Amino acid sequence: MTETLAARRARLMGPNVPTFYDRPVHIVRGQGVWLWDAEGRRYLDAYNNVPHVGHCHPKVVEAICRQAATLNTHTRYLHEGVLDYIERLTATMGHGLSQAILVCTGSEANDIALRMAQAVTGKRGIIATDNTYHGNTAATSALSTRRPPVGGHPGHVRLVPAPDSLRPVGGSREGQAEAFAHSVAGAIADLEDLGIGFAGMMLCPFFANEGFPDLPEGFLRPAAAVIRRAGGLVLADEVQPGFGRLGSHMWGHDRLGLAPDVVTIGKPMANGHPVAAVVARAEVMAEFREAFGYFNTFGGNPVSAAAAMATLAVHEEEGLMAKAAATGAYLLDRLKALRHPFVAEARGAGLFLGVEFATDAAMTPATGFCGRVVEGLKDRGILTHRTGRHRNVLKIRPPMPFDRPEADLLADTLAEVLAATPAEP
Amino acid sequence: MTETLAARRARLMGPNVPTFYDRPVHIVRGQGVWLWDAEGRRYLDAYNNVPHVGHCHPKVVEAICRQAATLNTHTRYLHEGVLDYIERLTATMGHGLSQAILVCTGSEANDIALRMAQAVTGKRGIIATDNTYHGNTAATSALSTRRPPVGGHPGHVRLVPAPDSLRPVGGSREGQAEAFAHSVAGAIADLEDLGIGFAGMMLCPFFANEGFPDLPEGFLRPAAAVIRRAGGLVLADEVQPGFGRLGSHMWGHDRLGLAPDVVTIGKPMANGHPVAAVVARAEVMAEFREAFGYFNTFGGNPVSAAAAMATLAVHEEEGLMAKAAATGAYLLDRLKALRHPFVAEARGAGLFLGVEFATDAAMTPATGFCGRVVEGLKDRGILTHRTGRHRNVLKIRPPMPFDRPEADLLADTLAEVLAATPAEP
Repeated sequence: MTETLAARRARLMGPNVPTFYDRPVHIVRGQGVWLWDAEGRRYLDAYNNVPHVGHCHPKVVEAICRQAATLNTHTRYLHEGVLDYIERLTATMGHGLSQAILVCTGSEANDIALRMAQAVTGKRGIIATDNTYHGNTAATSALSTRRPPVGGHPGHVRLVPAPDSLRPVGGSREGQAEAFAHSVAGAIADLEDLGIGFAGMMLCPFFANEGFPDLPEGFLRPAAAVIRRAGGLVLADEVQPGFGRLGSHMWGHDRLGLAPDVVTIGKPMANGHPVAAVVARAEVMAEFREAFGYFNTFGGNPVSAAAAMATLAVHEEEGLMAKAAATGAYLLDRLKALRHPFVAEARGAGLFLGVEFATDAAMTPATGFCGRVVEGLKDRGILTHRTGRHRNVLKIRPPMPFDRPEADLLADTLAEVLAATPAEP
Repeated sequence: MTETLAARRARLMGPNVPTFYDRPVHIVRGQGVWLWDAEGRRYLDAYNNVPHVGHCHPKVVEAICRQAATLNTHTRYLHEGVLDYIERLTATMGHGLSQAILVCTGSEANDIALRMAQAVTGKRGIIATDNTYHGNTAATSALSTRRPPVGGHPGHVRLVPAPDSLRPVGGSREGQAEAFAHSVAGAIADLEDLGIGFAGMMLCPFFANEGFPDLPEGFLRPAAAVIRRAGGLVLADEVQPGFGRLGSHMWGHDRLGLAPDVVTIGKPMANGHPVAAVVARAEVMAEFREAFGYFNTFGGNPVSAAAAMATLAVHEEEGLMAKAAATGAYLLDRLKALRHPFVAEARGAGLFLGVEFATDAAMTPATGFCGRVVEGLKDRGILTHRTGRHRNVLKIRPPMPFDRPEADLLADTLAEVLAATPAEP
């Protein structure tokens, strides 16, 4: 008996290494919105945002190959690639966000963003929501509630109740924006009272890990006003909603009417090549550059810059944001038409959609049911996953070339799975 | 007048972005140990360790292109690439170092290593030397002396005097190992007395940033014994000395007779592709995986694994470790034969060599002189840099295919530069 892949993985990577699905898939090939496993079975990718312009897009592959064969060094030598990219990237942003540091992962980007807020304010306190994820470094993982670091949760972090679609903060959808701002104000007062001081708030302007609740435009205005009044910075983590995924805007913060001081981007930025960035206003960047001597060996190297540039170019040439708006609107209509006693809400924007499942009118989360739906879709050849505080929100976040036939396939298959899955919690 | 590259860089990246040389080079192409600037001028690369098997090695480029065109996902799906690589990598290590986490940068790797020591011991205190660099995340940069974080240096970090070739800790070269261990013991006692507790010591087993002092085999034995007795972990940062660069051993810790609990690797691992790793004993990995739910989206993706695998394969096929031993020994002899009143010591191992400059017998650092030597070499078409506490150590750390003709060119040019550089501090 040969060693299974899972056993080999445990032997070489250790225990508790996360995988998706009860029986993980063994993927060997990808193209566009499709993936193939080792046995030749094809899967529709309705989940991965990293291959933003489609798996193995030939123009991105070609850019990587060409530059990898020409030069791959670092930014201690001058090179036009990183500058051309920053120029094109920042041209898509407003709010004076004109300068960038290129790094390799969203975690590195957020780790810097936190220090930018601290450098500008001279204070340490950071606020985030109580059901979020901003990275895996020691500093950014302190913003997650999952498991505390050795020595306990750090004193400079405050977590406020995350907005929610079905169980709104403050009890009502109408009052949620003010209730959220009120929590932020309380956390700021607490940090200031304790002498830690308030540096800034980091948030995903789509609240992706919080289950992307359905929020009105302007939702963040009261919280942002509270943050500004206290002299703190708004740090927008655009790793998930950015690059046009929401269909209506290139950046999630513009969709919510938020003017951030710092924006971080990652996963989809170079279609899978390890690239991420921190974008900031010039005066914020200057304070950070003054306070810390930051250098990242791989960050902004010519190959990474070429991969990111090709991804952004394809995104624009192929009109993927408009496509996400059109396909997403169509798919959302189809999701809203689903009928099942556990379907509590279909929601989202562009190609970031989902269905929340609850067992009753009190909105008791149908967590186990949602898990079975994800497995059922996978068994029928469609890859999705789930998210939210109760892991009861089906998460649909496909590569951007996802089109109407794929939307139909997904909606039809989901209807089939819902019909076949017993209505049990 | 068009905007200069430097001005454009300041506009898009902000102030204080580090570059090498008074007038930075604008490199556009690389091959083997050679780089070319935008005007077609050729430079011998005697500094960059990232392009470990040579700039743009065709086999590494081919591996990247092939895999990027086939599939690039993440380790939440099963894939053989990352497993094949970890198996081959750990086969080069002893001390039970059998499991790995793949990440994107050495900083990410060290950020994990620190938490591994904390997870195993349940304590927080970390020791490093007082002239080191282990990364740019908030947690790892706290081990640097450069600039303190906002709120001051964290209480759980203790820095001990770095070993030195010409100004040994404790006053004599013979007593330096014991004196170093004595400082470590003092730091441990301090951490324990304050109730912080001691988790581990992170060190580069070549003390690269400390100026790679000339140390005898077994130098770290007394310090390691002190660390073990206190229940702490030894975290070996092999980002610079690893992958056979020192000629005699694949890993720096084996050259010094040190058995680490955790090894981190980075820069040269995939010849420039953003890949790094943490390698640990199975029981250390298990404690970490238990204490933290760690996942890295880009870490260990199929393209990164392919790039790392190709780099390791080329390294072995081309016998680059033996080559580094032979070329390095030859070059070190030539460096030792240099005559100039400021040459205090030529030292190093394999293809990690240097010359320390001092103005007098009291070993007053010739910092400015060293800077002018680096610029003189660059003006004559050879790229090097400098390091050490006083920035008076010429640092020679070329791609591994660096051969005898290049060694001669470097030594001849250095002799010429020394003759042409006035003996002024």
